Amino acid sequence: MTTGQTRKPLTELDPAALDARIQQLEARHQQLQARKLKLDLTRGKPATEQLDLSNDLDGILKGDYRLADGSDARNYGGLRGIPEARQLGAELLGTRAEVVMAGGNSSLTLMYQIVTTALNNGLWGPGSSWRASTGGKPVRFLCPAPGYDRHFAICEALGIEMIPVDIGPDGPDVAQLTELVSADPTIKGIWCVPKYANPTGCTYSDEVVRGLAALPKSAGEHFLVLWDNAYAVHHLQSPGDELSDLMAAAEAAGTADQVVMFSSTSKITFAGAGVAFLASSENVLKQFERQLGFATIGPDKVNQLRHVRFLSGRIDEHMRQHAELVKPKFDAVLAQLQSDLAGLDIASWTEPRGGYFISFDCRPGLAREIVRLAGEAGVTLTPAGATWPYGKDPQDSNIRLAPTFPSLSDVEAATEVFTLCVELASARQLRAG
Amino acid sequence: MTTGQTRKPLTELDPAALDARIQQLEARHQQLQARKLKLDLTRGKPATEQLDLSNDLDGILKGDYRLADGSDARNYGGLRGIPEARQLGAELLGTRAEVVMAGGNSSLTLMYQIVTTALNNGLWGPGSSWRASTGGKPVRFLCPAPGYDRHFAICEALGIEMIPVDIGPDGPDVAQLTELVSADPTIKGIWCVPKYANPTGCTYSDEVVRGLAALPKSAGEHFLVLWDNAYAVHHLQSPGDELSDLMAAAEAAGTADQVVMFSSTSKITFAGAGVAFLASSENVLKQFERQLGFATIGPDKVNQLRHVRFLSGRIDEHMRQHAELVKPKFDAVLAQLQSDLAGLDIASWTEPRGGYFISFDCRPGLAREIVRLAGEAGVTLTPAGATWPYGKDPQDSNIRLAPTFPSLSDVEAATEVFTLCVELASARQLRAG
Repeated sequence: MTTGQTRKPLTELDPAALDARIQQLEARHQQLQARKLKLDLTRGKPATEQLDLSNDLDGILKGDYRLADGSDARNYGGLRGIPEARQLGAELLGTRAEVVMAGGNSSLTLMYQIVTTALNNGLWGPGSSWRASTGGKPVRFLCPAPGYDRHFAICEALGIEMIPVDIGPDGPDVAQLTELVSADPTIKGIWCVPKYANPTGCTYSDEVVRGLAALPKSAGEHFLVLWDNAYAVHHLQSPGDELSDLMAAAEAAGTADQVVMFSSTSKITFAGAGVAFLASSENVLKQFERQLGFATIGPDKVNQLRHVRFLSGRIDEHMRQHAELVKPKFDAVLAQLQSDLAGLDIASWTEPRGGYFISFDCRPGLAREIVRLAGEAGVTLTPAGATWPYGKDPQDSNIRLAPTFPSLSDVEAATEVFTLCVELASARQLRAG
Repeated sequence: MTTGQTRKPLTELDPAALDARIQQLEARHQQLQARKLKLDLTRGKPATEQLDLSNDLDGILKGDYRLADGSDARNYGGLRGIPEARQLGAELLGTRAEVVMAGGNSSLTLMYQIVTTALNNGLWGPGSSWRASTGGKPVRFLCPAPGYDRHFAICEALGIEMIPVDIGPDGPDVAQLTELVSADPTIKGIWCVPKYANPTGCTYSDEVVRGLAALPKSAGEHFLVLWDNAYAVHHLQSPGDELSDLMAAAEAAGTADQVVMFSSTSKITFAGAGVAFLASSENVLKQFERQLGFATIGPDKVNQLRHVRFLSGRIDEHMRQHAELVKPKFDAVLAQLQSDLAGLDIASWTEPRGGYFISFDCRPGLAREIVRLAGEAGVTLTPAGATWPYGKDPQDSNIRLAPTFPSLSDVEAATEVFTLCVELASARQLRAG
């Protein structure tokens, strides 16, 4: 978190000075509206230039569809994906290929399927469904917040109650989590984005990883740690953060049946046309496969093979090229935030070392208003609250900034609008007392 | 159906002649066991040579990932698939692009998702789920049998009770279906493979299509016709069968919200690495999309674009090339069946004009035994009963033959073993009286 110290805090201005400042800012806001901007900082989408880095994917097979084991990637067969892709997933997840399943184009789909299977069928043998073990009470999940809206949407769609929990620079507070799960056996899971978290950018410390691996031991039966390692190799700095292997920690703690890790190449190659991965114990993989077998004959193995041929041995170099394109956009946002807001005592924000987001906190009660003001001036921001379960930020203070998709000049223009709206909303609030 | 007339029926042999024949057949069966064959007629998988027909898919984009509407296939966005792919799906399904959604690599997945959505959430607005409308009673489905085992597996996995119904050369008997659904409002759906059906090979007549489009009007609320047009363009003869458009018939009958059609390119390009399609009314598509949005950000649009570029304007020619490879295998099986079994009065079989299967009927009570005998002699057949709900063929007489995947010589060798086992089992049964 950064809170600049160079300008006079807005909080220390007297009413007259505030009024003058508000007048300036409103005039500027009017000017911007006249510009009819149409900028968008909402989605964690790769930019066109990033996608171009993977254009060689199509055509890389050159007619050679054979796997190392001699089988043909073009035909049916195999729910766990091709061995080569499982190895690739293991590299991304920092674990062993044997525990990895390579799936289709969406890790979100794997998450949805794992949660529905755990909920309705059980991942631990007959009669082990969450529905069965909560005896009619709603299943509950711990949700570090701010977090990823699509995790929360899965819970909401399935009627799983969400309990927001804190997240700090090292990850969630394991003591708090332990206390919660010990007291309430209907809490059956936790969503984690353990590296360059969406949106705070934090990477879980080794101690937090160990604590999460042990968490199921304090919880009711069939507690599941859902580990969405979406930004495993998405560094903005070199060397990147290191995340320790949850699976190894879980095996040491005897909880390997209670962790499931996810990753994908969606923001490595093509968004939505990549390969997703899941990792868990052999027990869980078997139960999951059984259920998956009703819904599919198997994943797209040809696309898996493309990704293996394209990425093997060069993930680091490829991600360095991504960082070259992405980092200037993050730097531009951070520089603008610093120059416009530092020292005003009205906001703080993260300086991520990787991932796709900057997490911004304004004064309580202003996030919605800032998003509204920015919208008036032609800048679409992620809806305030989206980073919280049920879309409800209790402080109404968190805003997620996603600078990857627009061009650098659009990012700069959008951030200028954003900081203006932050200051305007804050000044008005302070003036209103 | 063919029942040859050239040899003396086995049913007319006296006990001594039967004994002599059994001895010959057993000796031959012994010989075959010694050959240690390892042949497989189980799965409707394309052969390597068929897959080779689509090798140009990979690399066809040549760096051009732009859609006609200017958007980028490589990035996130859009649950209905790219417009070009929806048009391709419309061609396959014989309907209009506006009602089509282009999905991932598996039409089975779309079927599973549609059935689970109808069951748990409803496809017709709030409170419309099958679970809600059956008031705690099990949901039931009509299943023309013999049929496709994976349709039946979806029902079994979801606790949907299956009622086998007859299927003839023109499709199911609409009068029988109407009577059943009129009497039982818990019957909520029917599985159809309307063209070159799995396994009987029949194509539904125009009258049957119209009858099925009208069927929901006789049924309880929210009845759904599930139309798996998996073999839409998989002709073995020219011209191929024509199937009339269920959607047009449903629109005319006012039941467009109660039909969902499926297809895929799995047996057109690469099995498991193709594009799947779904078609229904705008109302149903909207409800389905809403639910789908929790589980995915969208399908693999890059692979959709590949398929569009590869198949547009040349589906007929491409499928003619498939037929050139596939038809000799069907002909070989049919010739062997004819030469070994015709006139024996112990079996009948279909002579399909398209699709992937020959449906074979032996004397009641012998299918399992024939599959067992063939297995002893090194030929794996689809398990007897697999073509029936719950794997239970009430007559124990239907066997599905799938000749596409093995080489022509393996198909010939396997069929020779098969006919021997049919005759041996039949002769023993007749001898036992």
